[in-house]
Amino acid sequence: MTSPARPGSQAPSEEVPIGPGGPRRALIVGTGLIGGSLGLGLRSRGWHVTGRDREPGRAEEARAMGALDALGEDLEAEVVFVATPVGAVAALATEVLGTPGRRPDCVVSDVGGVKGPVVEAVPHPRFVGGHPMAGSEQIGVAGADADLFVGATWVLTPTALTDTAAFGRLRGVVTQLGADVVVLSPADHDRLVAVVSHVPHLVAATLMNAAAQGAEEDAALLRLAAGGFRDMTRVAAGHPGIWPDICADNRPAIVAALDRLLADLAQTRQLVAGGQRRGLLELLDRASTARRALPARATRPDRLAELRVPVPDREGVLAEFTSLAGDLGINIYDIEIAHSAEGPRGVLVLVVGSDEAPALHQAVTAQGHRATVRELS
Amino acid sequence: MTSPARPGSQAPSEEVPIGPGGPRRALIVGTGLIGGSLGLGLRSRGWHVTGRDREPGRAEEARAMGALDALGEDLEAEVVFVATPVGAVAALATEVLGTPGRRPDCVVSDVGGVKGPVVEAVPHPRFVGGHPMAGSEQIGVAGADADLFVGATWVLTPTALTDTAAFGRLRGVVTQLGADVVVLSPADHDRLVAVVSHVPHLVAATLMNAAAQGAEEDAALLRLAAGGFRDMTRVAAGHPGIWPDICADNRPAIVAALDRLLADLAQTRQLVAGGQRRGLLELLDRASTARRALPARATRPDRLAELRVPVPDREGVLAEFTSLAGDLGINIYDIEIAHSAEGPRGVLVLVVGSDEAPALHQAVTAQGHRATVRELS
Repeated sequence: MTSPARPGSQAPSEEVPIGPGGPRRALIVGTGLIGGSLGLGLRSRGWHVTGRDREPGRAEEARAMGALDALGEDLEAEVVFVATPVGAVAALATEVLGTPGRRPDCVVSDVGGVKGPVVEAVPHPRFVGGHPMAGSEQIGVAGADADLFVGATWVLTPTALTDTAAFGRLRGVVTQLGADVVVLSPADHDRLVAVVSHVPHLVAATLMNAAAQGAEEDAALLRLAAGGFRDMTRVAAGHPGIWPDICADNRPAIVAALDRLLADLAQTRQLVAGGQRRGLLELLDRASTARRALPARATRPDRLAELRVPVPDREGVLAEFTSLAGDLGINIYDIEIAHSAEGPRGVLVLVVGSDEAPALHQAVTAQGHRATVRELS
Repeated sequence: MTSPARPGSQAPSEEVPIGPGGPRRALIVGTGLIGGSLGLGLRSRGWHVTGRDREPGRAEEARAMGALDALGEDLEAEVVFVATPVGAVAALATEVLGTPGRRPDCVVSDVGGVKGPVVEAVPHPRFVGGHPMAGSEQIGVAGADADLFVGATWVLTPTALTDTAAFGRLRGVVTQLGADVVVLSPADHDRLVAVVSHVPHLVAATLMNAAAQGAEEDAALLRLAAGGFRDMTRVAAGHPGIWPDICADNRPAIVAALDRLLADLAQTRQLVAGGQRRGLLELLDRASTARRALPARATRPDRLAELRVPVPDREGVLAEFTSLAGDLGINIYDIEIAHSAEGPRGVLVLVVGSDEAPALHQAVTAQGHRATVRELS
């Protein structure tokens, strides 16, 4: 089913069809909730979408609900989304990239929740890891929604190998679907989602199991479980099947984040055990302030600035600047390469918060680049 | 403001005014969110409510919004709710119970989130600890609601000292307000809320602080914080001021529950670090099943049974049976003493789930009582 357009739904971007006439073409491999939503979203924005699934019935279902124009293969697709569970991505993406007759500039991406191992397993200039932070693999295509990604954060993880034109095309498609692109290295993505997603999920499950076991000893326990407990354990209700893969693929980051949390909780325990009222108040005050400041959804700062840097139009240039920004703790809200018509140089355009633009400008200049900063109105 | 009656709102109970004519009278000490809601709820059910607050302006505000009939003292009140933060309850309850001229059968209760220390500090047959699990001390009287307690769990903690008539009256008032009474010993209450409320709150605050600190290192972190993280940290946004008292008053139970959680989390960490897919799946599967089974609100079983036990009508008889049921892990959904007109004996009526009635019957019989069981339709 297609939901009505939500607030924040965007008009199709300025991109124009590539190639001589006809709609832009996409291929979707894996037509569950995410794949189906990609199909609905792209078709509602004028694309021609072909799809397939390991389970043919699921692809047929996606077509019946309007998420696909056709079943099977499309060698002319300019973008391919491998929308399967993490474990299947590398083999499928490699197969897609190696299919004889495939359009040579086709960009391939995925939607998995862990990026490092997948990106490492598909070392190809036109494979770019992606992670739309919306929906979940747990629901089938019946829950697909053309506007699932509108306003959602969608992480893209280019590397030193990434072809800038392929990245730019993928970024354009993601933006057209209404998502806010966040550019991160695969390792940074995995480290951050361990903290804000994987570890919280494991904590919720552990809390729920402790309560369930407590309830076996005292049936009243769950009658005392009010809204706060319900909120904290809600994610634990999700389908468990996807988590062993996630835990395996993101093991080092999850273990590190769990160790950090264990140390923090041990410290909280000491504050309680030692009756340290001031320390407890400080801890809870800090958390309250931080939680109130947590934006209701990913938002851009009020004022953005654009940094334009003439660069050689070659592989690796994106990763160079995204790691530089990452090292400075600066969010990149948009990134693209404006290609020069005359030669192998282009202009890298980086969009960051106005307050952070001077620091990035300084760092870029320190690396020997000439850069200009312009406030965006 | 008063919300419209919610589904589940109940007609006034069958109780009739005590004393010669006139409305039933209550006194509320502390007129914040809970005190104000008590006033609105009782007044909307025909009671005359007097209230006071350490801050006279707050009591005046409660009267202006219709939560109180009068300000100050009411020696004729048959029930007094001390609705202040935990730290102030014992002194105020003692003062109320000792006021010269007070109606001699007046029952006094409180609404604090920790029960052991308060109940111990007010060793009086007509003081019964209470904890309505609705609202929170963090919001002022402006958020008060006549139906705040409808459908909520309201724990009462009688002890061996408790006067059965006083308990019965309090239970009646709580039921009249629409709440579901859960009878627990003060220690059981404190142990259970540590698991389902206090420790989850501390975990939420600790998670939030870890994320906030991570965000200082990498600004993208909070852009990746999706719904699950928001759910898990929501309670941390609450006002921190009440927590040092709660942590101090319930220290042993909170430390024990935190230690348990730390051990459980260390085990979860080992499953991830060791790549134990089957163990992880089992953990998450168990949590998912338990979370899905968590009732949306405290609900009674479909079938209830009534156990009637002739007992001496004396102090301690309630606590004797509530601990017996607690030891068996059996929930008491209602408890009262039907007094005999002829002498110092009465009939204790215990309402439990039908499936658990035989076990309780057996245990009660084993203690030398004659008991009868009847299914409630």
